[in-house]
Amino acid sequence: MADTVTSLANGLLQSYVKDGGINHVDGVNLPSKSAIVSITKDLLKLLFPGYFYDQQVQRAELMIETAHLLASVRGRLEDEIYKSLEHFPPENVAPGAFRQEAAQIATDMLGHLPTTREILRTDAEAAYNGDPAALSREEIILAYPFIEAISVQRLSHLLYRRRVPLVPRIMTEWAHSRTGMDLHPGAKIGPYFFIDHGTGAVIGETSDIGERVKMYQGVALIGRSLSGGQALRGKKRHPTIHERVTLYANATVMGGDTVVGARSTIGANVFLTHSIPADSLVVIDDVKVKVSSKLDYKSETPI
Amino acid sequence: MADTVTSLANGLLQSYVKDGGINHVDGVNLPSKSAIVSITKDLLKLLFPGYFYDQQVQRAELMIETAHLLASVRGRLEDEIYKSLEHFPPENVAPGAFRQEAAQIATDMLGHLPTTREILRTDAEAAYNGDPAALSREEIILAYPFIEAISVQRLSHLLYRRRVPLVPRIMTEWAHSRTGMDLHPGAKIGPYFFIDHGTGAVIGETSDIGERVKMYQGVALIGRSLSGGQALRGKKRHPTIHERVTLYANATVMGGDTVVGARSTIGANVFLTHSIPADSLVVIDDVKVKVSSKLDYKSETPI
Amino acid sequence: MADTVTSLANGLLQSYVKDGGINHVDGVNLPSKSAIVSITKDLLKLLFPGYFYDQQVQRAELMIETAHLLASVRGRLEDEIYKSLEHFPPENVAPGAFRQEAAQIATDMLGHLPTTREILRTDAEAAYNGDPAALSREEIILAYPFIEAISVQRLSHLLYRRRVPLVPRIMTEWAHSRTGMDLHPGAKIGPYFFIDHGTGAVIGETSDIGERVKMYQGVALIGRSLSGGQALRGKKRHPTIHERVTLYANATVMGGDTVVGARSTIGANVFLTHSIPADSLVVIDDVKVKVSSKLDYKSETPI
Repeated sequence: MADTVTSLANGLLQSYVKDGGINHVDGVNLPSKSAIVSITKDLLKLLFPGYFYDQQVQRAELMIETAHLLASVRGRLEDEIYKSLEHFPPENVAPGAFRQEAAQIATDMLGHLPTTREILRTDAEAAYNGDPAALSREEIILAYPFIEAISVQRLSHLLYRRRVPLVPRIMTEWAHSRTGMDLHPGAKIGPYFFIDHGTGAVIGETSDIGERVKMYQGVALIGRSLSGGQALRGKKRHPTIHERVTLYANATVMGGDTVVGARSTIGANVFLTHSIPADSLVVIDDVKVKVSSKLDYKSETPI
Repeated sequence: MADTVTSLANGLLQSYVKDGGINHVDGVNLPSKSAIVSITKDLLKLLFPGYFYDQQVQRAELMIETAHLLASVRGRLEDEIYKSLEHFPPENVAPGAFRQEAAQIATDMLGHLPTTREILRTDAEAAYNGDPAALSREEIILAYPFIEAISVQRLSHLLYRRRVPLVPRIMTEWAHSRTGMDLHPGAKIGPYFFIDHGTGAVIGETSDIGERVKMYQGVALIGRSLSGGQALRGKKRHPTIHERVTLYANATVMGGDTVVGARSTIGANVFLTHSIPADSLVVIDDVKVKVSSKLDYKSETPI
Repeated sequence: MADTVTSLANGLLQSYVKDGGINHVDGVNLPSKSAIVSITKDLLKLLFPGYFYDQQVQRAELMIETAHLLASVRGRLEDEIYKSLEHFPPENVAPGAFRQEAAQIATDMLGHLPTTREILRTDAEAAYNGDPAALSREEIILAYPFIEAISVQRLSHLLYRRRVPLVPRIMTEWAHSRTGMDLHPGAKIGPYFFIDHGTGAVIGETSDIGERVKMYQGVALIGRSLSGGQALRGKKRHPTIHERVTLYANATVMGGDTVVGARSTIGANVFLTHSIPADSLVVIDDVKVKVSSKLDYKSETPI
């Protein structure tokens, strides 16, 4: 028995040596996924006090609790940013300055929590106004997966703008796992944003979305898939959506030079690959559904 | 360092005061999301004894364990319902009667567990009969996300019918997060229901679904998105689906006056906005796929 | 109060007796879902050392830690396989030999971890080369849900090939819940596989996928839904996809005799039900989007 385990372990260790690149031993410390998830949960508590605590928060205790949580998050966030900078050194930071840079970025990010709250308030407002099934704003913050997804995207975007590697993407992929919405940290998203239902929505890295845009489940803002691959990194590959546009379920808009003009409506299942002017209505042309009676067939026709 | 944290905390506290509505301090107690998730997990254990326990349940112990769990769930459920009634007082209950009403609703809901089990047994049966990949009924209950999604929907519907705010939606959004299926607590869903694969399925609040209906991933029963918003609350906005209808992947049916007649089949990707009679077959008209050879092009044609 | 609980408990216990089949008491031990999830997480740690530990792994400790984890996983995996064999006895194993068979399968599966790592390295490579948003291979392993989904599928496939009931499907449905990708343990999937974004992807049990295939979110390889149901079990019901094929978002390929030839490209939303030769380009015929100006209407036109 012990022999078998030793033999299995030896085989696996040889594989660790042979197939490097998907294991990480003795190298620079990687940021910890579980630490980043824990930090993200605490950031959500700071954004929405009283919603994600199990006990009610009294105003008298709020200052102390908030300061305590902020101090904790700042230290842990600094550590994860530091490990990410070490792992994937940015060009604009001197190697000896990683710790200082990490501390600065963590502090600056927390300093942006109030303005992030201002924008998230507009998102909650858009969700409430856009969904007759919502009974109250509290229901939206407590129950809607969209609020979690957009909050994490807006937080991660703060780190993305400071060119922090790894951490922002780990944050949004955690939210993706919980909400089914794949909102890249790089996307610029205006206020009063709302995705209803949300499962399957994709917003690519270089998307640029104006204010009061509304989407439904399965809407995708994606890049053209040429043979470019990694060569396309950093280029504008995803669409620009102007203000007050509505995109219905499973509509796809593709390409970095595709611009959807203000106040346009994109119908369900539309696949749009070119720019359209403001106030456009885009639907699939000549798609009708054909209704026939099954009773005309002898047996059920498989689709 | 301490100064920085104090400054960050002050900024955030000012934001809590300024941007009210997305924080909840000193107000009426909100129901606790984590408590509701814990209650929901215990309700699943009561529905499927022996499946979600880590240890095997002996028949001799089952009475004691069941009574113990029921007593615990009833108390915790009453608390969360009470907080929800306080938060969002219903018209039909006098303010002083919230505690009594909460106790009554919690007891009544638990009294409906046996009939809920009867319906869920038909759903498991429909899943088994409809999916050749299912090896056994046990596999369906242990592994299929659909069983979790429909169980939580049927449980939350019991609370929805009693006009409990917040709690039912928090329950179904928890299941949505875990299964990708967004089944609103308000929907009326007949027995022998099954959604295969399920990710991205949406069933709106006022949907009415007959018995033996089968759906696939991405199917959506949704409301027309007029400019109504909150003004439409409470109106019938989502479709009626009669018995033995099958809806293939990503089919969408829209509108509160849209009725899909019995035994109809709706093809994949169909977008249906009007009623159809019984025994209809609905497919997209004249959609053919065009197959051409890439070898006729000099370079790969991007799509 | 105690009377009410007793009455509720009695009602529920009567329901356990009456509606058997969805409860599991006094019968053969079922495998434990939570134990299988815990085993699966440990298998991911063994596949990607240093990525999913919270602390950094030193090379000196790696042998000891690996051997320790392997021994633990082997014992727990054997137990769950044993319970599954007992529950759903395979034809080819004598009833007295379940324990020995379970031990053998668990050991053999762990012996395949090195070759599984070799294939997963190619998947990570495909993800990196195919996605300009990926900053590094480490980001892919740490953040991309696809790596988790395909790792669990490839692990579960090892058990599926040995005809272990229940355990493999519980593994992939856990990954489905976390990633939105429903990849059946039975599917044969070649190396250099990648699903971008991934939410809503479905790969059916008898799918056969060649190397270097790339998919996007919502792509489904499914069976024809005839009236067969359980009678179709074990038959080839899902498509065959040859090497270097790309399938864009929400494309569906249906049927066990449908073969997509090598190097073909299937456009978004295509619904393909017949075979196509190598080097094909498949798009929806004559689907154009119609762009009109909303300003020509007096009021917004609902879609």
